Amino acid sequence: MSRKILVVGAGKSTSYLLDYFLDKSISESLHLTIGDLNPESIPTKIASHPNCKALELDVFKDEERAAAIKNADIVVSMLPARFHIKVAEDCIKFKKHLVTASYVSPEIMELDEAAKENGLVFMNEIGLDPGIDHMSAMQVIDRIRDKGGKILLFESFTGGLVAPESDNNLWNYKFTWNPRNVVLAGQGGAAKFIQEGTYKFIPYHKLFRRTEFFEIDGYGRFEGYANRDSLNYKEAYGLQNALTIYRGTMRRVGFSKAWNMFVQLGMTDDSYTVEDSENMTYREFVNLFLPYSPTDSVELKLRHYLKIDQDDIMWDKLTELNLFDTEKRIGLKNATPAQILQKILEDSWTLAPEDKDMIVMYHKFGYEINGKKEQIDSNMVVLGEDRTYTAMAKTVGLPVAIATLLILNKNITQPGVQIPISNEVYTPILKELENYGISFKEHHVPYLGYNPDTVAS
Amino acid sequence: MSRKILVVGAGKSTSYLLDYFLDKSISESLHLTIGDLNPESIPTKIASHPNCKALELDVFKDEERAAAIKNADIVVSMLPARFHIKVAEDCIKFKKHLVTASYVSPEIMELDEAAKENGLVFMNEIGLDPGIDHMSAMQVIDRIRDKGGKILLFESFTGGLVAPESDNNLWNYKFTWNPRNVVLAGQGGAAKFIQEGTYKFIPYHKLFRRTEFFEIDGYGRFEGYANRDSLNYKEAYGLQNALTIYRGTMRRVGFSKAWNMFVQLGMTDDSYTVEDSENMTYREFVNLFLPYSPTDSVELKLRHYLKIDQDDIMWDKLTELNLFDTEKRIGLKNATPAQILQKILEDSWTLAPEDKDMIVMYHKFGYEINGKKEQIDSNMVVLGEDRTYTAMAKTVGLPVAIATLLILNKNITQPGVQIPISNEVYTPILKELENYGISFKEHHVPYLGYNPDTVAS
Repeated sequence: MSRKILVVGAGKSTSYLLDYFLDKSISESLHLTIGDLNPESIPTKIASHPNCKALELDVFKDEERAAAIKNADIVVSMLPARFHIKVAEDCIKFKKHLVTASYVSPEIMELDEAAKENGLVFMNEIGLDPGIDHMSAMQVIDRIRDKGGKILLFESFTGGLVAPESDNNLWNYKFTWNPRNVVLAGQGGAAKFIQEGTYKFIPYHKLFRRTEFFEIDGYGRFEGYANRDSLNYKEAYGLQNALTIYRGTMRRVGFSKAWNMFVQLGMTDDSYTVEDSENMTYREFVNLFLPYSPTDSVELKLRHYLKIDQDDIMWDKLTELNLFDTEKRIGLKNATPAQILQKILEDSWTLAPEDKDMIVMYHKFGYEINGKKEQIDSNMVVLGEDRTYTAMAKTVGLPVAIATLLILNKNITQPGVQIPISNEVYTPILKELENYGISFKEHHVPYLGYNPDTVAS
Repeated sequence: MSRKILVVGAGKSTSYLLDYFLDKSISESLHLTIGDLNPESIPTKIASHPNCKALELDVFKDEERAAAIKNADIVVSMLPARFHIKVAEDCIKFKKHLVTASYVSPEIMELDEAAKENGLVFMNEIGLDPGIDHMSAMQVIDRIRDKGGKILLFESFTGGLVAPESDNNLWNYKFTWNPRNVVLAGQGGAAKFIQEGTYKFIPYHKLFRRTEFFEIDGYGRFEGYANRDSLNYKEAYGLQNALTIYRGTMRRVGFSKAWNMFVQLGMTDDSYTVEDSENMTYREFVNLFLPYSPTDSVELKLRHYLKIDQDDIMWDKLTELNLFDTEKRIGLKNATPAQILQKILEDSWTLAPEDKDMIVMYHKFGYEINGKKEQIDSNMVVLGEDRTYTAMAKTVGLPVAIATLLILNKNITQPGVQIPISNEVYTPILKELENYGISFKEHHVPYLGYNPDTVAS
């Protein structure tokens, strides 16, 4: 008899996920049910597969949801994170395993005991970031520890970017994921991390000026800016004694410095709406953030305000976005500056049909072993194939799919609400991901850390 | 029979207020009751006055509060704004007038109808700012309108500063009011105003770099930065058609540029607490906001980060505060950066016993009359006498006191929740304030506005 997998939500990142289940449906005796608000938007190739059924599912309709979950052996929720809880509660009720790629919310965490009592695996944060970052980091950290090493430094950066062959704008960036999250990135509080044993805080308006650089063979240079709380996984990773813990987001070099112009102007503010934003031109929007002048142009005022020379590439980055256009209108009612900026950026940064995306991840592990300080840098690059088979869909969907099958096959058995940081989980998943071209390259490098002994005088 | 005034809360700003009532207690047949949580802290000179009674009053004890209010003819609440509502509700219940120097909260506004039905005057915002600013502005605005003028521009700035004779630090600033409000000034959203008919927004991290200057005869130059919402009184003042409306806070020139260093570092953040803040030195606190370096000093890192030359006065302003001290400890548990910064500033900016404070206010009124554009600038300077009889206590307390007596004497009769913007209110109060040295100097100046015709080429 086939094992029944219910996938709730068939959005952007599910191409690889669904293909994985269907490709293995015969060898592994799987039957896939896809529950979605709009089942008609599921590609025919998938929906008409003999081992697949697509049904309309509104997770807020209790009976619909219960019926679907009751009928499954394992549930994969690809809904936005805030919608998981109803699904999770039914998984407890009907004793089903659950897999999601989302952060563990306090609500989900409350189900830990019930999941354990019922022997259920509630696996979360098993996409890309969070997901592959946890697994790839813990594999190296555990290996170093097993050899008797002591972790001194852990840094981890991930970026969703555009592939080099599709990289044709001055920002070296296009939206490959939720544009709103990109516009709001870093807001809501100071970024916090530890460097050489001391806490460090970066306020939002300085975040994009405190970057560090990374080099990846064959792909050139990248930069990283700090995530809001680098210390969230300090305990989970067992890094209580590490001197440096720093997590962040990767971009091509120069992006952050240019993005900082929007931050400085106040264009990323999402806390108030702009009067008559609908009929405002792009140029008028820019002028909202500049002092009034009867004689000076918006261009000159902006250059003066941000101290940009007119032959500075920063300036070209702004004009490339048509920011000073007197004709283009925003067309959004009662919009916040952040929503308006997003609209303007979407004009320029939306992936073209032939564009490919790219995922990059970069870890640094500094450690002491046998009295010596050493460092391993580890990086991953994944390129997308097209707009459906994106690197993002691949790196988010495949770990979810692989984990689901491992749970079904009782290779992952530890019950409870969890994230993929144990050997039982990451070893088989990382191994299988290699078959799909998702792998890390490791380099032993001199341990620079940030300590006085190793800094050149 | 004497009229009974109840003053609830005998805090900082009540010296002039209480003296005013007692000085007039015989000629005006007044009896004053002061209700305070700590009546023993009321000076004996006041408490032992034959026409005064001090009693212990906790406004959260319903019976105590009701008894005190029931027994009064008019109630003056000098409590922090959030505590007024219980007092106001009892004023409705027992049919008593109410006077406060606080902003009208939505809760208080809800009592408007009940106040009107009972013929009660609920006068609010009748201190300094809000208070004297409303009255002095409306007096000029009404005068211009009465002559057929049309207001084009209104700007209004107020500052609580240190008197020139006590001005002996590089910041030209000491705390003369709630230090916490000074540290948090401008936070919570972009500053919004109108210049020449277009909206302008300034994000917090740019607020202190977009100042304008004012000159006051005999007192030199001041600067102003924008308040969060300059447009709050647009309707109340009848300025719907004004092209420019801008309200702000006054400081001595150079304060804002230096304060901006704290903003840029992130030291004014009140949204998170710092680990082990109690035992941290001032220097370690500063280092939280700077990149780690094994070789560079905190001083050099800060100068580099903020691009300050070592012979820049900005640098001296920082060292004057002992910011880099390796011995001084913060001594506050689980404190936010803003709380820590406040502590550090209080070391340097607390008024000495002999120090005097100073209040400055500056209005600009641009208008068109008989086809000509004109401008009136109007300013007020009030100096304090000592640490009890401060300019702040005088400018907050006297308008409250005068209004109270005018209401008792039925010179102010319009019922309802209101602010002092009508002729009936501002004329007698401003006139009497002149007897206490609180007056405005007006200057006719060329209308510069911000319009192209008047800008020099």
